[in-house]
Amino acid sequence: MLAPSGHQFAIGIDIGGTSTTFGVVDSRGEIKYRGALSTNKYDNVSDYIDSLYEAVKPAIALVNGNEQIRGIGIGAPNGNYYKGTIEYAPNLKWKGIIPLADLITEKFGLPAALTNDANAAAVGEMMYGAARGMKDFIMITLGTGVGSGIVSNGQLIYGHDGFAGELGHTIIIPDGRMHPGTNMRGSLEVYASATGVKLTAIEMLTQFPQQESMLRVYTAEEIDSRLVYECAIQGDKIANEVYKFTGQILGKALANFVMFSSPEAIILFGGLCKAGDLIFKPTKEHMEENLLPIFQNKVKLIYSELNEADAAILGASALVWELKKISVPLG
Amino acid sequence: MLAPSGHQFAIGIDIGGTSTTFGVVDSRGEIKYRGALSTNKYDNVSDYIDSLYEAVKPAIALVNGNEQIRGIGIGAPNGNYYKGTIEYAPNLKWKGIIPLADLITEKFGLPAALTNDANAAAVGEMMYGAARGMKDFIMITLGTGVGSGIVSNGQLIYGHDGFAGELGHTIIIPDGRMHPGTNMRGSLEVYASATGVKLTAIEMLTQFPQQESMLRVYTAEEIDSRLVYECAIQGDKIANEVYKFTGQILGKALANFVMFSSPEAIILFGGLCKAGDLIFKPTKEHMEENLLPIFQNKVKLIYSELNEADAAILGASALVWELKKISVPLG
Repeated sequence: MLAPSGHQFAIGIDIGGTSTTFGVVDSRGEIKYRGALSTNKYDNVSDYIDSLYEAVKPAIALVNGNEQIRGIGIGAPNGNYYKGTIEYAPNLKWKGIIPLADLITEKFGLPAALTNDANAAAVGEMMYGAARGMKDFIMITLGTGVGSGIVSNGQLIYGHDGFAGELGHTIIIPDGRMHPGTNMRGSLEVYASATGVKLTAIEMLTQFPQQESMLRVYTAEEIDSRLVYECAIQGDKIANEVYKFTGQILGKALANFVMFSSPEAIILFGGLCKAGDLIFKPTKEHMEENLLPIFQNKVKLIYSELNEADAAILGASALVWELKKISVPLG
Repeated sequence: MLAPSGHQFAIGIDIGGTSTTFGVVDSRGEIKYRGALSTNKYDNVSDYIDSLYEAVKPAIALVNGNEQIRGIGIGAPNGNYYKGTIEYAPNLKWKGIIPLADLITEKFGLPAALTNDANAAAVGEMMYGAARGMKDFIMITLGTGVGSGIVSNGQLIYGHDGFAGELGHTIIIPDGRMHPGTNMRGSLEVYASATGVKLTAIEMLTQFPQQESMLRVYTAEEIDSRLVYECAIQGDKIANEVYKFTGQILGKALANFVMFSSPEAIILFGGLCKAGDLIFKPTKEHMEENLLPIFQNKVKLIYSELNEADAAILGASALVWELKKISVPLG
């Protein structure tokens, strides 16, 4: 039993740029109640909090009120764990520094903890997923962007300022492709994301004009990672090369991460994982190839065990059970 | 007072390929007794342990015997903290896996802890040096090679297998210069070490045959990092470019490390630091340039505060005071 009786549930809230999902979760990771609301409808954060409260209230009533709830965990872009703030999140309408955890505690009368989405996913994986029982692992989320959560000695690495674990922005190819969001060249995210797959496909179609490809009937705007995947499984050569290249970059990056924190496992999560062996095999191969012998054939490269739709809520809620460990006073 | 009375001292042992140094250290980091013996004279590790015991015995007697000593800390190449072993150290005569901590405990009747030299240096820095009071920092040792010790949440990161923190072997320039020891291309160590400075100087002399340089009177064998430094401070253009290039690579690498663990400080240690601003300025500049804005102008880039001759012994001895935290049972 993870939670003392009387605090059997946690609320998990996942704030995305478009919508917010939430759930009431028990200590075994079962979601008892789910809900959602718009995020970007609210220009003002306090209007958002009011609506969130109205949306969550029925769920709290369903489990017999606040006294059954240990706390609220929130996953949010640019979330800062130490301060409970969202700071300068480019995808949210609320600008500057938003003291979200405090606002939620005030409104709900419950303790709240907040971190970024990838860190929350890592905690969820440790509590309910593929990282159960592990003390050292790295979670890599391969979606539109690349996120990461790093666990060492059984604890999330937040760094001195709460912003550690931005592995998507580490430079893998010096002077490489320009990242349109950060204006940095050659970062992992600009290659090993859905956006990266699209960019690589467009580059390769230009680079090899003689090579036939099903992708040639589409405009650059139409090409996306799903389309590249569809073509790849039908044997399209360029589409297959796109995944090989993506895996090569990702594998090199993972090797560097392994030599940093020597994790027991690297857990892959997110849309790009749907490509399966197309991305997995070259990633694994190039990871092993770029490791010192002392690290080779030791690190498990595995997929997340969390259902993608639930993972964000579970991860956010898992933060609440973690509160014990980090001694945040409970209300 | 860090140690309970009756356990006022720790023994620190630093095992190098050629020689071993040791000291009896009090909890404030004062070295009360120093000594040394040969490492490579002993083909057999048990002969080495016997001699080590004979060498350390007078120091133990000087502080009134084992009951005054809390334990023995050892820094050793390829040292594994979890197992107390030295594993396949290329620079030592003892091959395979050596259970050194157990052998020392058996001989001395004292608890022993062992880790690699750079990790020991990081613990020393946290206890007695520039990292006092810090919970998140990275120690980079720039010597013949590049070592590292990473502290997050106030703890050394050992990883699942005890080998974490091999930042010298992360790949900074894909398909870059070949590392003669590891056969990997483009790792940090093959650029940002004394060996790397030598190799860069030789490369640049070939690459710019028209450029005058004081270094041209020396053979490739004669050129070393000290000579490059001497020429650089006399205004030699190539020698100055060598340090600029070295700092550029090191700065890029440090930026990646910051985006991993977001440390409060990066502490530089070792021979290359003697080049001062020649290496420091380009390193700092390229580190900042390659960081996401969220990390910029936040990380202190500083020199170690430990005397180089004492650091290894202090770091090793500091492991003993750390024993408390990691609950290794004491004898």
